Amino acid sequence: MTITITAFERSPDGGKGLARDTRVRWALEEVGQPYEVRLVSFSAMKEPAHLAIHPFGQIPTYEEGDLAIFETGAIVFHIADHYPGLLPQDANARARAITWIFAALNTVEPPILEFGNARLLERDKPWYAERLPLVEDRVRGRLAPLSSRLGDADWLDGPFSAGDLMMVSVLLRLRASGILDEYPNLAAYVARGEARPAYKRAFDAQLAVNKAPAG
Amino acid sequence: MTITITAFERSPDGGKGLARDTRVRWALEEVGQPYEVRLVSFSAMKEPAHLAIHPFGQIPTYEEGDLAIFETGAIVFHIADHYPGLLPQDANARARAITWIFAALNTVEPPILEFGNARLLERDKPWYAERLPLVEDRVRGRLAPLSSRLGDADWLDGPFSAGDLMMVSVLLRLRASGILDEYPNLAAYVARGEARPAYKRAFDAQLAVNKAPAG
Repeated sequence: MTITITAFERSPDGGKGLARDTRVRWALEEVGQPYEVRLVSFSAMKEPAHLAIHPFGQIPTYEEGDLAIFETGAIVFHIADHYPGLLPQDANARARAITWIFAALNTVEPPILEFGNARLLERDKPWYAERLPLVEDRVRGRLAPLSSRLGDADWLDGPFSAGDLMMVSVLLRLRASGILDEYPNLAAYVARGEARPAYKRAFDAQLAVNKAPAG
Repeated sequence: MTITITAFERSPDGGKGLARDTRVRWALEEVGQPYEVRLVSFSAMKEPAHLAIHPFGQIPTYEEGDLAIFETGAIVFHIADHYPGLLPQDANARARAITWIFAALNTVEPPILEFGNARLLERDKPWYAERLPLVEDRVRGRLAPLSSRLGDADWLDGPFSAGDLMMVSVLLRLRASGILDEYPNLAAYVARGEARPAYKRAFDAQLAVNKAPAG
């Protein structure tokens, strides 16, 4: 059955790979599954046809035969659950890898999203300069223990897994800020993720969309 | 094998059920699995013995035989994956229920966490009053489409699932603010969750800990 995902017709980041379809493309590349992409404009994302698949009017979505799901974490988990390559076979190791997917999305990403909101939505506010260090410290409050746990390992728990895919993807959002570089082992961890051939193919695929001439 | 979870020795909410062990207790009650609880103080949470299980120094954790995992979403998923009662058997319905777990944690909860940070950590800041409405609107930006999707259904996708357990748990954090009441169908949805016998047992169990005299 053909797998079809959705992505931005024009990503707000201009092709830096931070839109969430990159996470799904990366997972599909890791497991070697071909996929098709349906591009969606900002206005079409809020239309009934797209809202029927994604109630929050976002991307990505995932369709395969009768199945239609949304939410990046759910899609990456679904791919990892159905195709070999992103989760260990041992039951306990599998549960730990899934733990890291959730840790990336619900412990590490929320302060990064708050930091992004401050930088994107509150830059013109009178409190911006004074408040930003508080928000940065909330991000550090997650990065410091993550850095301690990773230590000098290549990946979070044994071989590369869907948990690493998600954690690297979440941390990538920080790189432009310079905060990631305060934790050299995390910066190197992210670089290891980006060096994977599957990541490169995913990145190039989203870049090709965003570099194409406007239709 | 005995299931052991961790919980706060004294919850910061004084027993309102908003600490994340309630979510795990609720899941265990729904599937009818007995469990033991190890209470952890704020200082012990940052000690090596606990950090070995939970790298971010938080609760809850979940131990069962050789398995030790952390992160509420991962624990609830693990329970739902291993014991019948919280995920549909049909493969596509199962994937959709899992989607709602992730949507609760990564789409709906982040702005609620940001709102909580504002109220808890920035109440004494000069920008608090002017900024709060912006943060409230980010929460509404998630609640409005969620309310539209739920409509007049009892649960998000067919019978009650782990996705509803997580979404209700996330929305419960909003009730004291009054924002939830702006969406009557969401307020009723949360009330339906709280009315489940398994939720009541979970709530009472955490309350018993937090009402006990200090040791």
